[in-house]
Amino acid sequence: MINKHQATLDAAVQALHGRTFFAAFPENPSPDIYGADADAQGRENFAAMRGQRFTELQQGEPTAWVGQEESPYEQQSLDIKYPFYAPEVLVQNAQGAFDEWRKLKPALRAALLTEALEGMRARFFEIAYATMHTTGQAYMMSFQASGPHAADRALEAIAAGYEEQTRFPEDTRWEKPMGKYSIALHKTWRAVPKGLALVIGCSTFPTWNTVPGMFASLVTGNPTIVKPHPKAVLPIAIVIAEVQKVLKEHGLNPCICQLAVDADDHLIAKDLAENPAIKLIDYTGGSQFGEYVEGLKNKTVFTEKTGVNSIIIDSCDDLDKVAQNLAFSVSLYSGQMCTAPQNFFIPATGVKVGDVLVPYEEVVQKISAAVTGLATNPKAGPHVLGAIQNPATHERVKQLAFDGGRSILAHGTVDNPTFKNARTCSPSIFEVDASRVEQYSQELFGPIMLVIKTKDTQESIRLAAQLAREHGAISCGAYTTDTAIKEQIMDEMSLAGTPVSFNLTGGIYVNQNAGFSDFHVTGGNPAGNASFTNPEFVIKRFTWVGFREPVAS
Amino acid sequence: MINKHQATLDAAVQALHGRTFFAAFPENPSPDIYGADADAQGRENFAAMRGQRFTELQQGEPTAWVGQEESPYEQQSLDIKYPFYAPEVLVQNAQGAFDEWRKLKPALRAALLTEALEGMRARFFEIAYATMHTTGQAYMMSFQASGPHAADRALEAIAAGYEEQTRFPEDTRWEKPMGKYSIALHKTWRAVPKGLALVIGCSTFPTWNTVPGMFASLVTGNPTIVKPHPKAVLPIAIVIAEVQKVLKEHGLNPCICQLAVDADDHLIAKDLAENPAIKLIDYTGGSQFGEYVEGLKNKTVFTEKTGVNSIIIDSCDDLDKVAQNLAFSVSLYSGQMCTAPQNFFIPATGVKVGDVLVPYEEVVQKISAAVTGLATNPKAGPHVLGAIQNPATHERVKQLAFDGGRSILAHGTVDNPTFKNARTCSPSIFEVDASRVEQYSQELFGPIMLVIKTKDTQESIRLAAQLAREHGAISCGAYTTDTAIKEQIMDEMSLAGTPVSFNLTGGIYVNQNAGFSDFHVTGGNPAGNASFTNPEFVIKRFTWVGFREPVAS
Repeated sequence: MINKHQATLDAAVQALHGRTFFAAFPENPSPDIYGADADAQGRENFAAMRGQRFTELQQGEPTAWVGQEESPYEQQSLDIKYPFYAPEVLVQNAQGAFDEWRKLKPALRAALLTEALEGMRARFFEIAYATMHTTGQAYMMSFQASGPHAADRALEAIAAGYEEQTRFPEDTRWEKPMGKYSIALHKTWRAVPKGLALVIGCSTFPTWNTVPGMFASLVTGNPTIVKPHPKAVLPIAIVIAEVQKVLKEHGLNPCICQLAVDADDHLIAKDLAENPAIKLIDYTGGSQFGEYVEGLKNKTVFTEKTGVNSIIIDSCDDLDKVAQNLAFSVSLYSGQMCTAPQNFFIPATGVKVGDVLVPYEEVVQKISAAVTGLATNPKAGPHVLGAIQNPATHERVKQLAFDGGRSILAHGTVDNPTFKNARTCSPSIFEVDASRVEQYSQELFGPIMLVIKTKDTQESIRLAAQLAREHGAISCGAYTTDTAIKEQIMDEMSLAGTPVSFNLTGGIYVNQNAGFSDFHVTGGNPAGNASFTNPEFVIKRFTWVGFREPVAS
Repeated sequence: MINKHQATLDAAVQALHGRTFFAAFPENPSPDIYGADADAQGRENFAAMRGQRFTELQQGEPTAWVGQEESPYEQQSLDIKYPFYAPEVLVQNAQGAFDEWRKLKPALRAALLTEALEGMRARFFEIAYATMHTTGQAYMMSFQASGPHAADRALEAIAAGYEEQTRFPEDTRWEKPMGKYSIALHKTWRAVPKGLALVIGCSTFPTWNTVPGMFASLVTGNPTIVKPHPKAVLPIAIVIAEVQKVLKEHGLNPCICQLAVDADDHLIAKDLAENPAIKLIDYTGGSQFGEYVEGLKNKTVFTEKTGVNSIIIDSCDDLDKVAQNLAFSVSLYSGQMCTAPQNFFIPATGVKVGDVLVPYEEVVQKISAAVTGLATNPKAGPHVLGAIQNPATHERVKQLAFDGGRSILAHGTVDNPTFKNARTCSPSIFEVDASRVEQYSQELFGPIMLVIKTKDTQESIRLAAQLAREHGAISCGAYTTDTAIKEQIMDEMSLAGTPVSFNLTGGIYVNQNAGFSDFHVTGGNPAGNASFTNPEFVIKRFTWVGFREPVAS
């Protein structure tokens, strides 16, 4: 088992340190890679699950069958029922599995979990359709983000955890010279897991945002309970079923990794989080609940909360390409990404394009036109924008207004060629005054773009850095042809713990963070401290404990 | 500068991972190593400082000169005055030094700090006398703990910080194949310091417990303010002066590392700790203040607080050797060590010694006799016990009594051959009942040994593990010849985050933790989370931030 996956793990560890392009799971849903029938079979499997109980889990007899998922494409229930267990039952199950899991060597845990990712791979298309019809992501994003990209992020966490747990020797001989004689000790060390782990998922990225914490806690020996968002259970339920299958096949207790679903009439996240046996919590979601989790005593907590992401436009070579790139970024999955840009800082004095100074208003109109062009292109719009996961997001866009602000572009409708009842809308663009920080210092989740007219680029940088420091940010885009400005942005945004993408045009976007290369969330600002995957993300999940005993010198 | 110290740093990084014996600074105060006059010169330098102002610091004009140090050997004031600065002035100074310090490469910061340790080395004897006459440590411990052992712990922190900051590439080319073409990005990463750091020292180990956090924060680019205990300033003031000297010599702002002393009429630790610019805090001392520091918002905090350390006696080969080893451990520096054993769990059924079962009472009397033998040996007692740092510790020993307990050995006097007025006392031993956990679940700092009569070894293990989990522990000693019992102790104490020394006899003691090999404090129980030096101890002091930009593919 260890040998089977060692090459994958070694390659993953190497990729983590090289930070060059690496992917163990191809992102192209091509029949050549995944098989001629894979897509059709996945779609069929998903369809067959609708209206049924999800019976793949192996965590004992449930007390009820519950489910609240609805398709944003159909605006109707999936009617899938999941087994419900009281939080204390889940905790007891996990406690019962702790000893056997923690006593396995890290290399074996890593191999078993990598094996489970192979099982996940075989179900990427099923997971893709499950993701589409819970999150509203378009097909391609559903496949990539919930399938190969998530599996790569999971492998990254497994690899990082494996590396850190094997970074110090299991045992050594320590011999201290004392002049005429010496003292010799046999020393051993163990990487001791913290206890039980809880992972609380979000509604928009049910696997991508869940698997890093889940696999990081598991590889470090902590039995893990995954509590997904009640509206997006199926994609991660499939992954958990695959983990349980591998555990069972190897004679291990499947309750090493359990699914916890909310009851239809009450949420169980707090009950689980506050249970004293839960030592580790990973959380993705809104800041209010995130701060509650961070405030719990005697827990190690990893969060990805909200942030406000900025685009700083100073100067560029080709404004049309910039506008197209930004229009795509703001439209991708209708802005329902933690990395989506929201605040666009543009100097009132205009933007230098090559040798020409393009006036502010022309820049704004060009971006607005690019957004409209994308949304109204029937071959692109629906496939980029996808659907709106939450009706509240839809309402936010529809009711958007700012005191003293100016509407640049009103949201519109987007017809989906396949799903007539899809919950969609095109982006809304508002101009707000730079002095009204309160209007743009919160995350406005959804297809919303705020244009902030600044005095000059210095003010743009100052405001973007201040927002990131005080309110959090997960991404930042900047356009400048001036090397001094570029260095200044790097310096100021680095102090605000925010990664910056410079001068993106063409097929790469500020929203995209690549596994094994881009640290997703830095931990350096209020947007959260869960960094996929830096060493801190895994080493806080276990404790190094040493033992020593004299031996003959 | 970098080249000069690279070999030392590389050796230190290697030692961290090999965890075999390594010391860059010899612990033997031999004239052959440190020079024929080193001791006499150090003693003379210390004597010359008494009654004077400490004028070596380069952090601007002070507002007052203050000092409260007293020698536990003389019970009279050292009358040394240190420059006082208001907390906000210290913070402003540090802020003014931040940019130049953070912009240096980690390798250069590491080299500069290693250079400062060379300066410290030249003053080991001066630091030794300063330590004796502030902490009450005996001469040999003062030299070793405050000199070479502390310098090695500092080098360990520098090495760990250097390694972690250079563990990911500064830049790389990331190229993603996209079928017929590819996307290429130039990516760079920076290890960004968190901000200003504060280190709060304790009265008993003024350099050993301070330098790990101090050098860890410095090497990761954070200007550092060191606030020692008002009764033990001089040893660390000398170290800070050496750091400032190196900074100044290399054209850097000495306020990158500052000394902060309490005013004679008020303490300034809280003012500093609560200042929003302070992002990192290292603290050594009592649990009450430690928990206050841990509760501060938006700070990364490393603590070493109190714990209750246990000895579990199950079986052994030579009870006399065990008794001598334990007597030394409880007597060393009069039990004023965070690693000193306090609770001795002995089964009522006796201890198996070879094939013989030695009755409980005989075991207790043997240990008691060994303690008395050591304390009353004029050639050993005073040099092992040293002096009592704090009059309150002395009072605690004198007034020790337990409801229902039995006094095994009353404390006695220990005459110091050199210092007639030394504040000393020999250890007090009490037997308390295993059922009265409240009597032995707190740290009783000082030369105090509690014998806890248990039903059997199973109860001993259960109680020792429970105390460590609930009240914290930094060390544990166990004596057993039974491999199953040994594994059980390792397993249960590992879950309590407590390192265990097995079957120590001869010249090595449970109190001693070796730099580069033993993780001091694991972070796995309430005794604290500052582990000298695991990766967590350094990586939480900076943030990885990445930047990327398209390049021609």
